[in-house]
Amino acid sequence: MQNKSFKRKKVAQPNVKTLADAILAGNFTALSKGITLCESKKVEDRKLANELIKICLPHSGNSIRIGITGVPGVGKSTFIESFGIYLIEKQHKKVAVLAVDPSSKRSRGSILGDKTRMNELSVHPKAFIRPSPSSGSLGGVTHHSRESIILCEAAGFDTIIVETVGVGQSEIEVKEMTDFFLLLMLAGAGDELQGIKRGIMEMADGMLINKADGENLLNAKRAKREYQNALHLFPAAESGSSPKVEICSALQAFHLEKAWSLIENYLNITQQNGYFEKQRQGQLKAWFNKSIQEQVNVRLFGNTAVKEKISLLEQQVEQRNISPTEAAEQVFEEFLRTLPR
Amino acid sequence: MQNKSFKRKKVAQPNVKTLADAILAGNFTALSKGITLCESKKVEDRKLANELIKICLPHSGNSIRIGITGVPGVGKSTFIESFGIYLIEKQHKKVAVLAVDPSSKRSRGSILGDKTRMNELSVHPKAFIRPSPSSGSLGGVTHHSRESIILCEAAGFDTIIVETVGVGQSEIEVKEMTDFFLLLMLAGAGDELQGIKRGIMEMADGMLINKADGENLLNAKRAKREYQNALHLFPAAESGSSPKVEICSALQAFHLEKAWSLIENYLNITQQNGYFEKQRQGQLKAWFNKSIQEQVNVRLFGNTAVKEKISLLEQQVEQRNISPTEAAEQVFEEFLRTLPR
Repeated sequence: MQNKSFKRKKVAQPNVKTLADAILAGNFTALSKGITLCESKKVEDRKLANELIKICLPHSGNSIRIGITGVPGVGKSTFIESFGIYLIEKQHKKVAVLAVDPSSKRSRGSILGDKTRMNELSVHPKAFIRPSPSSGSLGGVTHHSRESIILCEAAGFDTIIVETVGVGQSEIEVKEMTDFFLLLMLAGAGDELQGIKRGIMEMADGMLINKADGENLLNAKRAKREYQNALHLFPAAESGSSPKVEICSALQAFHLEKAWSLIENYLNITQQNGYFEKQRQGQLKAWFNKSIQEQVNVRLFGNTAVKEKISLLEQQVEQRNISPTEAAEQVFEEFLRTLPR
Repeated sequence: MQNKSFKRKKVAQPNVKTLADAILAGNFTALSKGITLCESKKVEDRKLANELIKICLPHSGNSIRIGITGVPGVGKSTFIESFGIYLIEKQHKKVAVLAVDPSSKRSRGSILGDKTRMNELSVHPKAFIRPSPSSGSLGGVTHHSRESIILCEAAGFDTIIVETVGVGQSEIEVKEMTDFFLLLMLAGAGDELQGIKRGIMEMADGMLINKADGENLLNAKRAKREYQNALHLFPAAESGSSPKVEICSALQAFHLEKAWSLIENYLNITQQNGYFEKQRQGQLKAWFNKSIQEQVNVRLFGNTAVKEKISLLEQQVEQRNISPTEAAEQVFEEFLRTLPR
């Protein structure tokens, strides 16, 4: 074991070390490469990714992680563009956006590429935008966004925005990897129309009514009062900071400072009462559990021989030539057989 | 490998063979023992259970598997008691009931033991009642109810009733292991009061309004019409047999033949159009997938060394001494280390 692990390090370390150094120096290309490495499902890549995360971890954590959700059409992309520029120019932040790829099937966002989607922010030297391939059941948030966050932080970004497509599971995922969960809303669309489930409102650390401009401004103000009243009926937030509602217009860059104040107030309270750190520790634990599951998926179900055995046995099971439990045992035996001895 | 597998069989086979023979001869005690074996999570027991299922599988399948759900208070136990007796006495069936243990936390059923719960049926020589420990996330239906069904069929039971506690996941589980899914309802309680989600109604192959007696009879008749109309709005059933609604009173043994006709009509249609067999094949495949997951849970996460490693690493992860992904890799390495070489 010692030998094997030594050999692996001898081969892999140099490249990963170079990549890590470049990421720590703030190199965007290296950061992109690192994220791609972490997203890979190949066993070899996973090993390199682990080395990379290991090096970057001590340089991470020094940021605010903001999750953003809202139904399609609420203006998430425009808000992130507008708010990102505000954070860089007025709050002197360095902003990384882990965005959902709008070309994916599940998202109903712009069909244009991501670069045109966040026009100004995407070319800003203090912003990094990473569209994640919207693959699998999580509807846009890839399994490795947690690792992407670490890498962005190691590269010097102090504000990480994680966007969800707003379909069930992805919101829970994003909530579980961010410090502050922001729900974007529209005025006058009605809760049902917006697909807002009570569960999502309960998850939010703050709510923002977007498109508060022109004739819609009055509606937005009324909606703010209504949602604020509704939030009072909810059980007290575990964070100790009761969720607030603000209005803004991303398009007109109106009230973006209110959006920021929502987040700033929350941070002040939760960093003082210890919830901020407690939540991050809990998130690390959840990440660990997910990583164990990932190990199983990659090492066991990613194994070609195992995959072939499964599809073969599936037919046998359907034809009742073998019991499902016995077949499952054979799958595991096949896996053990493929291990180097 | 050959040797090991041979050795295992040499030790285990005789006992399992004896047990299987007794089950096939219809011995109730052996059947109970067999089910207990299948419910065990110990690796040794799992091996024996697999042998047992392997022997019994060719003798299984020759039954009707009926899933029954409904909210607490709808009278599931009384219905199963009453309907079970009807099936035995009027339809000459042999009935096995895989019931939920009413003493469990999640069930709000009788706090009396299962034996007093189904008074007459539990002592009937043509009935077998097995209360399952209501453990874990499935809310009463144990993971191995599929295997219990096989054993009951091998023991000669031609009607298998699987009862759910009516909490989300367990209904899906039961639907996935039965031929006919019966939803028990009450008249006049209102859909919301009964906790009936649209999804559950869509899962039902038939609905039965219980407690149609005394002053409640008229209500029940009206409810029957209403539910039947509601069912017309649903998309056509995949089974080719559109769900019907009947009324009955389990307490007064009234209209139990209507309950039976619901099931009989469904069977006639689905056995002719091939859906019955198609569904059973799909269920075998689903069982196979669950069994593979079970293998992982038992062999990997059931391993003591692995469990200890996980709890040790969890602390390290929370203290940020190790990255969650790297820790997960170590969990898997620990598992590989424990394998006999």
